[in-house]
Amino acid sequence: MGRKRLQDSVDGRPTVHTVAARAGVSIASASRVLNGVGGSPETIRKVRAAAAEVGYVPNAIARSLQSQRTGQIALAVEDIGNPVYVAMMRAIEAVVASSGRQLLVHATGGQIDNETALLRRLAHRYVDGLILSPIRITEEHLAALADSPVPVVVIGQLPADTPVDNVRTDSRAGVALAVDHLIAAGRRRIGFVNGPLDTVPGAARDAGFRAALARHGIDLDERLVEVGDFQYAAGRTATERLLARSRPDALVCANDLIAVGALHALLVAGHRVPGDVALVGMDDTELASMVLPSMSSVSLDAAERGRIAAQLLLERINDPSLPPRRITVAPHLVVRDSSPTPDGRAKQWA
Amino acid sequence: MGRKRLQDSVDGRPTVHTVAARAGVSIASASRVLNGVGGSPETIRKVRAAAAEVGYVPNAIARSLQSQRTGQIALAVEDIGNPVYVAMMRAIEAVVASSGRQLLVHATGGQIDNETALLRRLAHRYVDGLILSPIRITEEHLAALADSPVPVVVIGQLPADTPVDNVRTDSRAGVALAVDHLIAAGRRRIGFVNGPLDTVPGAARDAGFRAALARHGIDLDERLVEVGDFQYAAGRTATERLLARSRPDALVCANDLIAVGALHALLVAGHRVPGDVALVGMDDTELASMVLPSMSSVSLDAAERGRIAAQLLLERINDPSLPPRRITVAPHLVVRDSSPTPDGRAKQWA
Repeated sequence: MGRKRLQDSVDGRPTVHTVAARAGVSIASASRVLNGVGGSPETIRKVRAAAAEVGYVPNAIARSLQSQRTGQIALAVEDIGNPVYVAMMRAIEAVVASSGRQLLVHATGGQIDNETALLRRLAHRYVDGLILSPIRITEEHLAALADSPVPVVVIGQLPADTPVDNVRTDSRAGVALAVDHLIAAGRRRIGFVNGPLDTVPGAARDAGFRAALARHGIDLDERLVEVGDFQYAAGRTATERLLARSRPDALVCANDLIAVGALHALLVAGHRVPGDVALVGMDDTELASMVLPSMSSVSLDAAERGRIAAQLLLERINDPSLPPRRITVAPHLVVRDSSPTPDGRAKQWA
Repeated sequence: MGRKRLQDSVDGRPTVHTVAARAGVSIASASRVLNGVGGSPETIRKVRAAAAEVGYVPNAIARSLQSQRTGQIALAVEDIGNPVYVAMMRAIEAVVASSGRQLLVHATGGQIDNETALLRRLAHRYVDGLILSPIRITEEHLAALADSPVPVVVIGQLPADTPVDNVRTDSRAGVALAVDHLIAAGRRRIGFVNGPLDTVPGAARDAGFRAALARHGIDLDERLVEVGDFQYAAGRTATERLLARSRPDALVCANDLIAVGALHALLVAGHRVPGDVALVGMDDTELASMVLPSMSSVSLDAAERGRIAAQLLLERINDPSLPPRRITVAPHLVVRDSSPTPDGRAKQWA
């Protein structure tokens, strides 16, 4: 749709030409003011007055009606306060903004009802596409995705045959990186503090932890495994329960919020970290550098997943005929002070 | 604008009546499906097929054209990752969602150009109103606010005569609460780690700190004052500079990110908190409970400011003739383990 078309009249309503003529300025000047991209104070005043007098309908609405494009992308995440979503959101916002579109952020609270209602509301076409990062994938999600009237990219694990663009990480492999790192440093009584097993990340991380120990020939002591939820307070109390019944020499935690809770449970109980108990978190959020000792963490590269999801969505909007794409971002381990350095020695802090 | 009007034809385009007749369902059923609020799978299938056949234009676009309402509210903050904005954003999202509207979140990076460009883009009327929380207020902001084509509520300090709805806190009084608390506990060498003095919060907090000490008859030792920015790393290095030249018995920090940096600088330097140095942060974010020892902090009630700002904006959208309103949310102190309890005794931790 060319620029000329946008300035033509839609069913007889006043256009930028009408406004420019009334204001006594050039069409280019009127257009700049009406598009909010500049003009001298005097030109802005004249053009706005003329637009009000002739009843000019703003561009965005007329353009939506003509092109059925809204210039908006929605992002739905469970919790806009979770640091892993913050990193993802910032990366998505950068791609969306550089394409000249605007990002609309929704918080779903992880409620399946909210997520499927959001997918149904896409029928209003208030956005050109949606990036959805659900914490669980249900049959309702899959049905709503299959029916979606606008493109959706899902960040997370989808069944293999779902015909939807998908960006995922391999959190099983991520947990294995943490376990390998701790075993290389001589730790053997490795515990695991997880989130709920009925979530996609909880289930994947549990499976990854068990598989990694098995690969090293270690029989898992179930007393070293605890489950809470993916928050600080639950991570701290889950670790207190674990420490009350067992004596780990290392802990892997299913995200950084849990890991900060675990760190504080360990320190309050008088354990040195990493001397007595080494600790590795997951997601490599900003929090990992804001605790003492700073915390090793497995990066699942939320920012990179967000960046790729936004690019896939923009490509899909431009070319709906593309085949569904699935991209996996590989995890990597960031070693800080809460676990032994690669040579096996633990740094100590005061 | 009544429900009936929304279902009438706009310049001859198919309406919900046309779709319902084609699908062989009731108008109520067709409306529910087209509005994305329910229906049996079979009804949904029939209505969607009928809508596609007759070329039904989605409601949101037609409604925008008729009412000039978009059903969207924008929020612009410096940094969507800052915990104080996260609390504000969640509160705003709750009010906006309960009004049936959607929230569009913009990150401005604190750039004046981004903020004023955003104000100019409101000429597109892609939202019904904007909540703006600028870190600095410039002449450009004031000019853009005066010209804004849609209602704007500003969270922050505005000059007294600005004809704009405004929600503010009193951060000078907030700093005074921290100083009073520390003096009541017998501390006298109270330091202050601030953000940039050319920001509105930085200037207000500096003035509040100096005024509070003066009120207690204490001469400020300038070696006890440091300035960085409002982030963790800067707070930590600013505190290291301060500790290299002076010996405080308490520190007030201009936000919680600075305060967590200060806490770690103190602990790494071997100071007990609060035994040797008491610490009070500001903003009372979730971080304050996620450090060890947990951190006392002055709450400027970002969530309450967000909630009020959203309510003011909805009222303004419904009644543009309201006089400009200015609401101040009073600060309060939350005492945790990093400062002496009200009886003056410091809790100790391991």
